[in-house]
Amino acid sequence: MPDRRVAVDDAPDPDFRLEATAENVHHSWDNAHEPVLTVEPGAVVEFDCRDVYNGQLPPDATVADLDAVESEGHPLTGPVFVEGAEPGDTLRVDLLAFEHEGWGVTVVPRGERGGGLLPEEFPDPHVRGWEFVDDDGAVPHGPGQVARFVADDAPDVAVPVQPFPGNIGVAPGEKGSHDTMPPRNVGGNMDVKHLTVGSTLSLPVEVVGALFSIGDCHAAQGDGEVCINGIEAPMTVTARFSLADREVTAPQFETAGPFTPTGQDEQMYATTGIAPDLMDATKQAVSHMITHLHEQRGFSRADAYVLCSTAVDLKISEVVDAPNWTVTAYLPESVLAD
Amino acid sequence: MPDRRVAVDDAPDPDFRLEATAENVHHSWDNAHEPVLTVEPGAVVEFDCRDVYNGQLPPDATVADLDAVESEGHPLTGPVFVEGAEPGDTLRVDLLAFEHEGWGVTVVPRGERGGGLLPEEFPDPHVRGWEFVDDDGAVPHGPGQVARFVADDAPDVAVPVQPFPGNIGVAPGEKGSHDTMPPRNVGGNMDVKHLTVGSTLSLPVEVVGALFSIGDCHAAQGDGEVCINGIEAPMTVTARFSLADREVTAPQFETAGPFTPTGQDEQMYATTGIAPDLMDATKQAVSHMITHLHEQRGFSRADAYVLCSTAVDLKISEVVDAPNWTVTAYLPESVLAD
Repeated sequence: MPDRRVAVDDAPDPDFRLEATAENVHHSWDNAHEPVLTVEPGAVVEFDCRDVYNGQLPPDATVADLDAVESEGHPLTGPVFVEGAEPGDTLRVDLLAFEHEGWGVTVVPRGERGGGLLPEEFPDPHVRGWEFVDDDGAVPHGPGQVARFVADDAPDVAVPVQPFPGNIGVAPGEKGSHDTMPPRNVGGNMDVKHLTVGSTLSLPVEVVGALFSIGDCHAAQGDGEVCINGIEAPMTVTARFSLADREVTAPQFETAGPFTPTGQDEQMYATTGIAPDLMDATKQAVSHMITHLHEQRGFSRADAYVLCSTAVDLKISEVVDAPNWTVTAYLPESVLAD
Repeated sequence: MPDRRVAVDDAPDPDFRLEATAENVHHSWDNAHEPVLTVEPGAVVEFDCRDVYNGQLPPDATVADLDAVESEGHPLTGPVFVEGAEPGDTLRVDLLAFEHEGWGVTVVPRGERGGGLLPEEFPDPHVRGWEFVDDDGAVPHGPGQVARFVADDAPDVAVPVQPFPGNIGVAPGEKGSHDTMPPRNVGGNMDVKHLTVGSTLSLPVEVVGALFSIGDCHAAQGDGEVCINGIEAPMTVTARFSLADREVTAPQFETAGPFTPTGQDEQMYATTGIAPDLMDATKQAVSHMITHLHEQRGFSRADAYVLCSTAVDLKISEVVDAPNWTVTAYLPESVLAD
């Protein structure tokens, strides 16, 4: 059993812990949600976070299980009221530790969510469970763990485990109930894979007390999250709050370590999308990578889509050579364990 | 004087050299251009490549020099006819060596090119010359050189020198003269910064002989190339040609080494753009980074724009959390030499 905790070297003990109980979990962004905890700046809080499927999909889940999932929005733990936080302030959140449960799941959904970036290519749902195991030293940074498919009907993969919160933010100033799906200037479902342990996130405060919430943790994800899932996993996150004397109008963050867990002195394979629209270019690059993984590396197209969403990084190579932009998709060879 | 050559360990001697003479340089993509060299697969060719400004902007250039520049399109060296290349084939190009001249230039242009990604913010032109010097060991990969501003009226920077061809491709099958600015499915002005030494590019062949050309080399660039220039530099590129038995419909490539020259175990600063349009999200992320560099790190906004274009990487963090997408911009701390 690998160590389930990833933490900064000097991670302090938490001052508070919020269990993921019905009282402490909400499913919308709404500044009318009553705070479940009030803290002073400097406080360290441990957040018990449900996975995005609210515990309904175990690592051996099937499409039938997926079809039975009921969702009322991302389960978010909070909100936390930070004393002294006023609109116009910046809330800083140090991500100090993550503790996973050794497994995760990645889904290509059907229906409303429409199959991610490429719904035309992937009308059918698909489910992959993952187990997290100690790696063989191939991962140069991070916890030294990799995620592997639970089932053995696909080529072996080894995706570095690099936990981060998919959904992290504060309450919007605008009244009412806001969907947890889109990210906003106050954060939320940003799905930034580089918000790993040791990072510090700055969020613009729009309501008194900030009203911070967090959830939807991922054990790994590619830049882009193209099938609409990372490696979705229940997790505990330890965070420290502070207030900064500068104003930000959108989330900003610092990473203490490298921003890319793989790609260290290793071979990469890349595809391009070239089009006058960034979304079209993105779709092309991903579609070419799926074809590469299918034709050259032996994955089904659905598994290739899952691998793109969990381990392939999308970059904007150029956005100035009018009228065509270049988007590139990067596959680190080390995730192909064969 | 630092070593000006960056090469793979086993770089072979070239079989041919193409000087950047008027006869060997063209300024459009056109399958009617007569080949200036015919080679067999396996041949190694050294290409003398002019910089994008065709030698009109030295490293101490001013805006007045910029205003006097005459352009007829990117100067491209070639085309090379590869024996046996037929439409439907894939031309593979191994990038074996780059040799620079120790300097480069980055421009925010005015007029037709419109100031890059953020023309509203940058209506005025700006010119920065660079000199390439041996670094102090801060660059973990590559030639161990960094680019610094020639002038001393800005904070010090140290951008790792990682040469690559901005414009590399084969002739399109469609007849006529095609502008060198937009990249296409046959390559061209892709501005992919990761096509560094040791990489292999696969290009779809659309005409007999492929008709390969190359130019517009950059000593460094951020993913995005937001001000529309990398570190533009005259350079010699050594490349080996081969034909592959698989078909690609758009450029694909492999990197032998890391795809990111910096970001190795170092602190990063990142900004986000969150919007329902990828281009808007991209503009927001870059604009926030410019503000960060200006307000927190002491750069003029124009120099911050130059630094974004040459050293800040754009990633697509998520493109599935409808209706808002997240684009992030990453600044490696090591390029801020202070």
